[in-house]
Amino acid sequence: MSRTPVTPGFMTEAIDPVELLKALVACPSVTPEEGGAQRLLGETLRGLGFEVEQLVSGEEPHGPVHNLLATRGSGGPHFAYAGHTDVVPPGKGWASDPFVAEVQGDLLYGRGAVDMKGSIAAFVAAVARLPELGGTLSFIITGDEEGPAVHGTRALMTRMEERSLHPDMILVGEPTSQNRLGDTIKIGRRGSVNMWIDIIGKQAHVAYPHEGDNPITRLFRIGTRLHELDLDDGDEWFQPSNLEVVTVDVGNPASNVIPGEAHLRLNVRFNVHHTGDELVEKVRAIVHEEAPGAQFKAMVSGEAFLTEPGPLSDLVSASIQQVTGLTPELSTGGGTSDARFLHILCPIVEFGLLNATMHKLDEAVALSDVRALTDIYEGVLRRALG
Amino acid sequence: MSRTPVTPGFMTEAIDPVELLKALVACPSVTPEEGGAQRLLGETLRGLGFEVEQLVSGEEPHGPVHNLLATRGSGGPHFAYAGHTDVVPPGKGWASDPFVAEVQGDLLYGRGAVDMKGSIAAFVAAVARLPELGGTLSFIITGDEEGPAVHGTRALMTRMEERSLHPDMILVGEPTSQNRLGDTIKIGRRGSVNMWIDIIGKQAHVAYPHEGDNPITRLFRIGTRLHELDLDDGDEWFQPSNLEVVTVDVGNPASNVIPGEAHLRLNVRFNVHHTGDELVEKVRAIVHEEAPGAQFKAMVSGEAFLTEPGPLSDLVSASIQQVTGLTPELSTGGGTSDARFLHILCPIVEFGLLNATMHKLDEAVALSDVRALTDIYEGVLRRALG
Repeated sequence: MSRTPVTPGFMTEAIDPVELLKALVACPSVTPEEGGAQRLLGETLRGLGFEVEQLVSGEEPHGPVHNLLATRGSGGPHFAYAGHTDVVPPGKGWASDPFVAEVQGDLLYGRGAVDMKGSIAAFVAAVARLPELGGTLSFIITGDEEGPAVHGTRALMTRMEERSLHPDMILVGEPTSQNRLGDTIKIGRRGSVNMWIDIIGKQAHVAYPHEGDNPITRLFRIGTRLHELDLDDGDEWFQPSNLEVVTVDVGNPASNVIPGEAHLRLNVRFNVHHTGDELVEKVRAIVHEEAPGAQFKAMVSGEAFLTEPGPLSDLVSASIQQVTGLTPELSTGGGTSDARFLHILCPIVEFGLLNATMHKLDEAVALSDVRALTDIYEGVLRRALG
Repeated sequence: MSRTPVTPGFMTEAIDPVELLKALVACPSVTPEEGGAQRLLGETLRGLGFEVEQLVSGEEPHGPVHNLLATRGSGGPHFAYAGHTDVVPPGKGWASDPFVAEVQGDLLYGRGAVDMKGSIAAFVAAVARLPELGGTLSFIITGDEEGPAVHGTRALMTRMEERSLHPDMILVGEPTSQNRLGDTIKIGRRGSVNMWIDIIGKQAHVAYPHEGDNPITRLFRIGTRLHELDLDDGDEWFQPSNLEVVTVDVGNPASNVIPGEAHLRLNVRFNVHHTGDELVEKVRAIVHEEAPGAQFKAMVSGEAFLTEPGPLSDLVSASIQQVTGLTPELSTGGGTSDARFLHILCPIVEFGLLNATMHKLDEAVALSDVRALTDIYEGVLRRALG
């Protein structure tokens, strides 16, 4: 198979994933900026015979967001690849321009190299190798995964519903590999919920404590009870759910004053033995017992989910094994991704590049990994739609 | 006895305490400013036959501080009056100029009216009525009681030691009355110690808690153990010692990050069953058990002390009873005063005006209280040195 250089707007059947990755890195698509990445991807997919719908959703400050829905073929099975073209801000201190792909030996440096323009490039290149697949193949690509994610995948899902697009399986291209490409795929994710607690006490001079009501005393009682919450022990697929108090703040500058308010914020990463709302009620009950006048706010940013090991994880594992020789671990660890929304549609797994440098300075991917990932994705496509 | 108006620099035997108070209020002596108050008092006492030594101690930013040591007579017994000419900042929102005594009905408004220029004026006026007392009478007057108090009474005590001035009893003119003039005198004070605890943890992503060490978890353990400390139950003269955590701060803006540090500050008001150092070691032990790497700092701002009821409290109580009909409560409550330093010299009691408006906007004293306090102080002087 020939490997000819890729440039924006090209139309060819042979796509070099490294060249496509370079072109994508050159698009400064820091959330929610489109940066040219969605346009480039849309043109490339049209060149591969996809019907491409480009949607713009949302307003300032979290939008507008550019999203993309591309389909090819018809009937079942319907296999979808999901991903995002946006990247986190580069930060200061890069050795080279974060929006110019810099190759040194086997490494390509650039913001988004692993999270997740490298995966998109590999999947597109794999598709280019397979013009004659059965069923339906689609791309669900958002420009708002790294941001608030309110105008991204959720908007795409609404559009899919309108168009009666119902995938049977979804592969998300997030960087799931830990130490070697293919060592880990994700078959579920923990949920995440944030809670804010504002404890109201009564200010007083520290020499007259009976005239006050120290909110910090209540805060310690709440904190102790939160730490005593035994949420669960985890199971075969999930580590135990975990609650962390991430900040406590009073900001009292005076040593001789009992403060009037104390603030606590916490996050729970939870497995499928809980729902976000159930955890919120558990914490709310403790707060209201220990600090009846407290103000309480909660936001569930994603529920836990699990795709039980089955046909989808099997075909991804088999493709990985064929290319790398590794049997991937089926994991549910780590942070959240757009799978938190998409999992309600059908079985879903996540598999992509090494995550060691994601969100960091000098984010980099091995060119050999990009090529191997292309081979793995090709195997996935053959097994799913061949 | 005639009551002629007082003006700065006057020399007369009859002094109207209200007029002297007005002149003192007109001196804007916010700590550490002298504001003319020490000069006015020095001139007044010279006019009453005192040998007056005016000392300036300390440097920027907590100085220079103007202090005054005045003595009259010789031999024993030696009775000393202690007080301060400095006042706390007025703050914004006064109905009248805080440094112009404003009389409305029986009330005189002005910063320092009760804390404690009113007491100084009353004591000086009482002295003026008694030109022929026995023993030694002295004034120990600082310009830095409301501030850090490092260049005030302690500097005066050093000078007293150099001059071999050894009072047998001291009356501090702080506003000790609660609801009616004469209802409370202080025969001791609780001590006070501040401690600062900086807990060092290890930052991590909240989805990977095993990679971090949440300092807030340690902070809650420390806080809980601090609250479980059963210091004492108090006794006949003292309320129980009390520990208050006055602030806890992390300042973590991110919901998905376990923070690297947490900070706690506490204050203990303690009675004579403890020393500051003993409490510091108690807390330090807990901190080092629960957070081995924590940074710990402590400052004892005063030890607890008690003047057992005896001749001094008896003569003050008798004078109060004669003028007001009240039998004062002997108390050790409330905040600290310069008695925390002076108590090592000899028996000491504190008695002065109503403290309801001290340190507040529109601080005010009843003219009738100033006159009654003058009568009470006169009775004290007659009983002590008559």
